[in-house]
Amino acid sequence: MTVHPQKTRVLESYLAGSWRPGKGEGKPLLDASTGAPVATIDASGLDLAEALEWGRATGGAALRKMTYHERALMLKTLAQALMDKKEIFYQESFATGATRKDGWIDIEGGIGTMFAYSSKARREMPNTKVFVEGAVEPLSRDNSFSGQHVLTPLRGIAIHINAFNFPCWGMLEKIAPALIAGVPCLVKPASQTAYLTELMVRHILATGILPEGALQLLCGSAGDLVDNVTGQDVVTFTGSAATGQMLRQNKAIVQNSTRFSMEADSLNAAVLGPDVTPEDPEFDLFVKEVAREMTVKAGQKCTAVRRVIVPRKTAEGVAEALKQRLGKAVIGDPRDDAVTMGPLASRGQVDEVHARIGDLRREAEIVLMPSGEVSAEGAFASPVLLHCNDPLKAEAVHAVEAFGPVATLMPYDTVEEAVELTHKGKGSLVASVFTNDPEVAEEAVLGMAPFHGRILIGNRQSAKSSTGHGSPLPMLVHGGPGRAGGGEELGGLRSIKHYMQRTAVQGTPRLLGAVTGRWIAGAPGQEDSRHPFRKSLAELKIGDRLVTKSRTVSLEDIEHFAEFTGDTFYAHMDQAAAERNPFFEGRVAHGYLIVSFAAGLFVDPDEGPVLANYGVDNLRFLTPVNAGDALKVQLTAKEISPRITADYGEVRWDCLVTNQKDEPVAQYDVLTLVAKDWPQQGA
Amino acid sequence: MTVHPQKTRVLESYLAGSWRPGKGEGKPLLDASTGAPVATIDASGLDLAEALEWGRATGGAALRKMTYHERALMLKTLAQALMDKKEIFYQESFATGATRKDGWIDIEGGIGTMFAYSSKARREMPNTKVFVEGAVEPLSRDNSFSGQHVLTPLRGIAIHINAFNFPCWGMLEKIAPALIAGVPCLVKPASQTAYLTELMVRHILATGILPEGALQLLCGSAGDLVDNVTGQDVVTFTGSAATGQMLRQNKAIVQNSTRFSMEADSLNAAVLGPDVTPEDPEFDLFVKEVAREMTVKAGQKCTAVRRVIVPRKTAEGVAEALKQRLGKAVIGDPRDDAVTMGPLASRGQVDEVHARIGDLRREAEIVLMPSGEVSAEGAFASPVLLHCNDPLKAEAVHAVEAFGPVATLMPYDTVEEAVELTHKGKGSLVASVFTNDPEVAEEAVLGMAPFHGRILIGNRQSAKSSTGHGSPLPMLVHGGPGRAGGGEELGGLRSIKHYMQRTAVQGTPRLLGAVTGRWIAGAPGQEDSRHPFRKSLAELKIGDRLVTKSRTVSLEDIEHFAEFTGDTFYAHMDQAAAERNPFFEGRVAHGYLIVSFAAGLFVDPDEGPVLANYGVDNLRFLTPVNAGDALKVQLTAKEISPRITADYGEVRWDCLVTNQKDEPVAQYDVLTLVAKDWPQQGA
Repeated sequence: MTVHPQKTRVLESYLAGSWRPGKGEGKPLLDASTGAPVATIDASGLDLAEALEWGRATGGAALRKMTYHERALMLKTLAQALMDKKEIFYQESFATGATRKDGWIDIEGGIGTMFAYSSKARREMPNTKVFVEGAVEPLSRDNSFSGQHVLTPLRGIAIHINAFNFPCWGMLEKIAPALIAGVPCLVKPASQTAYLTELMVRHILATGILPEGALQLLCGSAGDLVDNVTGQDVVTFTGSAATGQMLRQNKAIVQNSTRFSMEADSLNAAVLGPDVTPEDPEFDLFVKEVAREMTVKAGQKCTAVRRVIVPRKTAEGVAEALKQRLGKAVIGDPRDDAVTMGPLASRGQVDEVHARIGDLRREAEIVLMPSGEVSAEGAFASPVLLHCNDPLKAEAVHAVEAFGPVATLMPYDTVEEAVELTHKGKGSLVASVFTNDPEVAEEAVLGMAPFHGRILIGNRQSAKSSTGHGSPLPMLVHGGPGRAGGGEELGGLRSIKHYMQRTAVQGTPRLLGAVTGRWIAGAPGQEDSRHPFRKSLAELKIGDRLVTKSRTVSLEDIEHFAEFTGDTFYAHMDQAAAERNPFFEGRVAHGYLIVSFAAGLFVDPDEGPVLANYGVDNLRFLTPVNAGDALKVQLTAKEISPRITADYGEVRWDCLVTNQKDEPVAQYDVLTLVAKDWPQQGA
Repeated sequence: MTVHPQKTRVLESYLAGSWRPGKGEGKPLLDASTGAPVATIDASGLDLAEALEWGRATGGAALRKMTYHERALMLKTLAQALMDKKEIFYQESFATGATRKDGWIDIEGGIGTMFAYSSKARREMPNTKVFVEGAVEPLSRDNSFSGQHVLTPLRGIAIHINAFNFPCWGMLEKIAPALIAGVPCLVKPASQTAYLTELMVRHILATGILPEGALQLLCGSAGDLVDNVTGQDVVTFTGSAATGQMLRQNKAIVQNSTRFSMEADSLNAAVLGPDVTPEDPEFDLFVKEVAREMTVKAGQKCTAVRRVIVPRKTAEGVAEALKQRLGKAVIGDPRDDAVTMGPLASRGQVDEVHARIGDLRREAEIVLMPSGEVSAEGAFASPVLLHCNDPLKAEAVHAVEAFGPVATLMPYDTVEEAVELTHKGKGSLVASVFTNDPEVAEEAVLGMAPFHGRILIGNRQSAKSSTGHGSPLPMLVHGGPGRAGGGEELGGLRSIKHYMQRTAVQGTPRLLGAVTGRWIAGAPGQEDSRHPFRKSLAELKIGDRLVTKSRTVSLEDIEHFAEFTGDTFYAHMDQAAAERNPFFEGRVAHGYLIVSFAAGLFVDPDEGPVLANYGVDNLRFLTPVNAGDALKVQLTAKEISPRITADYGEVRWDCLVTNQKDEPVAQYDVLTLVAKDWPQQGA
């Protein structure tokens, strides 16, 4: 093979508004299968402090001008644009050693994560610039002083230092929550596969969908990048524990209390339940899953199974079944469709894996031997299965990670012992438990939980729908305690909050409402001659209020409601029995009667901007209603969230029903859809 | 004064089940006012690794056997026992330099925090051993695979390294959430005031209310304490940034990814709004609050106001008013009732404060001079007010903290500038904004929020009820970004979660339900001949289900319901108008009719264990119901939480209403109170 260095692609960094090559001679990056140069990488001489400051100022300001929904929709548009070009990324992905299936996880899995974040944020966050978290905390008896937690975007930049194994997903799963939060990003991919990340960033920036400054890329060594962080920045790291620990002790991170999140490889376990016999479907599911975890990405996944924990009586059967299954792997250049397992990322990785197998062999014997290498140039390695007969006394098998297609089989005698074995990993990203027995599931999962960020239960019922041991999902947390780095990524809104500052705001409800953009109990409401249901989103204001006339509930009403609905519960119908009930002093009105009469009091019957009542939240019945009590409703516009992609939006109303003594009878949120505009009648 | 060393109290540590003195010669601790020895302290030769392991094993196991409610009730009993002895602690507290008012914050504030946690946990957590967080995440279309986040207690120990200024509150506010979470604690108070902490721990342990191993105490140097942490431990630190940063870089903490939370002193600001004139009530409130913050605990509070940010036009008036008010402080031995401000904790602290005032004077001039010392033995210091005329260009006034009765006045011209000044503190625990203008509140608070853990808005309406700038509250987060250490304490349930591991559990709903102790949508339910409302808590099981017969909704029903309730919304009454509504194809039944008919279908009318329906959660109307549709209800017991202190408990029912096409019409949780026991009829 002849290589002309002058033709090799030179990776560039996108910093402070322009694409910049490093000033030094580039380090060559080689195709994992062929050894041919793919690109060169270098970041020397680049001004990283300037880039950080530019991102904070330019990108941060632009992102913070947008609402959560606007940023989420921006990501949806971007995800669509990337999906349209996915074949370009697949082609480049082969050089990393990824098969088409491996590439699917990285490329479409990454883009899918952006889609998922976009829709989750629009469903679970209001279309505002401030995120109001949790309930109002009343801090005074007379409602003149209350507290409310709010989250606002940090004023810094998110620095994402990523691993080589997922050059696309690794970037996209982190920038999605940061950008929705309103925080700009600087991505530093691992050099080995940075050419794929660089390619994708070029396409992202070319779309012009992100505001300038929202995304920067550093190809090459991190240099003094982290030395320039502030207390408003966030640093996330995925990769080896050694590098992660070095970063965690970085002087700037320590001195500024910079948020630092680490996701390190861990000794993830797959546990087969004691209830499972070789005849059960769970046995095959287990063997398939372990074999898949060992061979997908050639075992180069931080979530891959490293420890195969099985009942002693089943251990031999599992070993045999695994050997057969692993023996079917077709190893080679992933550009060949017949290949099911590609090479490792580099020859260096192969040497590293062999060295770690050596460490493991001090405590475990080889069950499935490594086979010969496929080619001299490529970084190929075949699956290796080990067996450790006394894993409770062993150390290395719980601590040494061979980052390739390598796992160790370990027998156990009781579920308690299996749990203890998982603990010996000192914290993992994920574990799986294959069982069809609810008691085994309960004991194993709850026993293992404190040491794991995610646990998958595998059984026959979820065989087809399960997303598998190794797949982090956007809606579930990813990251584990201890050895796994102690970080937490993904998990829906949780991860968006990692890029925001939580602040408890205290004050009188009127001023607190001005800060949160929500009506807070205790704040005044404004009434005018128009029913608030006659106001479109363009006219409605937080605090707009209707106070209804009152309606007396008669015994006939209660009896009639009972008869009409069929709800003849004794507390409504039988005075003596109702008096025996610890909560009532006699016959009471139905809770559903109260809310029905309340609607009768507050609804405006004519066509208008309020299109539908789509639900009710947090309904509580506070004081029993007896015949003769008079109900009155105070309805106040609490939260207004116009949709970007529709001509209506959500309005949440605080609904307080009181009796003739002004005691609260029921309180709840009424949820409505309201048109953005509505022609005013008679105006 | 004659001191007999042999009479001086020797502080001991409570470790691994016994009270132990240090093996070395004790260091004397002096009364802050008189300089008389109070006690000696020493921790040399104590086996701290053994203590940690004993706490994890003995205390952890005992606590994890209890439910959240059991642990919360245990704290309530303990708080009551401590309150009964409060005078003992007040008497000891004088030696620290605290006035009776200062002691109230420390002693009754600390005990009150335990009470607050106890009731909050019982209100917001179920009476279980696993905490289920957030909604079920559906991971498959056919509901055969779902996800659920759960939190379980860490298997380690919480190490609380506390500051000298709040020897009681500092301990209690941290052990309360840890113990409720189910994690044992080891408390290391700052030496200077450790005698008060030691006294309180002796009383706590003497009550026998906590299980053995739940609480340990280390009096004296931390030695190799932190070198022995694991990935399941939690270390919290309150105190100086320098010590905190050293701990953050501790090898064991770094290598094990041990959770580390830091709360350091910060340059907290009080901002006077531009709307406030000297005639406004907010002016006086501001001056009083700043003066109080400077003098309470002699300014030795991590939340004390250090920067007084005022409109340039009002600066002189504020300075004058502050001088007058601060001049009234009566400084002396707090055992004297007339004294309003005690000494600093030690003579060393006085020297330190004077040195820091020297640093500040490089950029600010003295407005209120320190007056002469009250006595030669005591650690007295009088209030000092400085003025920095160009604070936007200054550095030291935003970075140097004199931990005593010292603050710097800073003028500003625009709200934007005031916000920028607060940012120059690089992260603070708290700030306050005094204004009566909603727009000022919004601009200032949202601008400052990313740099603050808490912001108090002060105005006339909350003047009487406000808990003040300096008081962390159990239900609001305490801790700030950057300089303030980046930690988060308190904040209700949030802080209990700091001691638990969050795990995403995936699986088929049946097995997921076994793990979470909740019925999960998609899991089977069990029906039997008895209506589930006939079952007491002793008999009812998760998944017990009722499927009702169906009821057809007629147009007459809709019209009758409209007439009866008064809810004559056009979508129910007018076919043509309903068709114009974007969500309906014609006249629809009321949402409240649907839930009322549903209750008619599922309610069992006779007296029985279901005592009341106290509310409804998450009601969503999913498919419109038209005349002729037949409704049917599936009601499934979802969560069962028996109360410890009552003969009933809460049962949450999943209520799914479907139509004749099996489409979901409405879904919600029905909340009921159910008796623990009920005599079975005819059994």
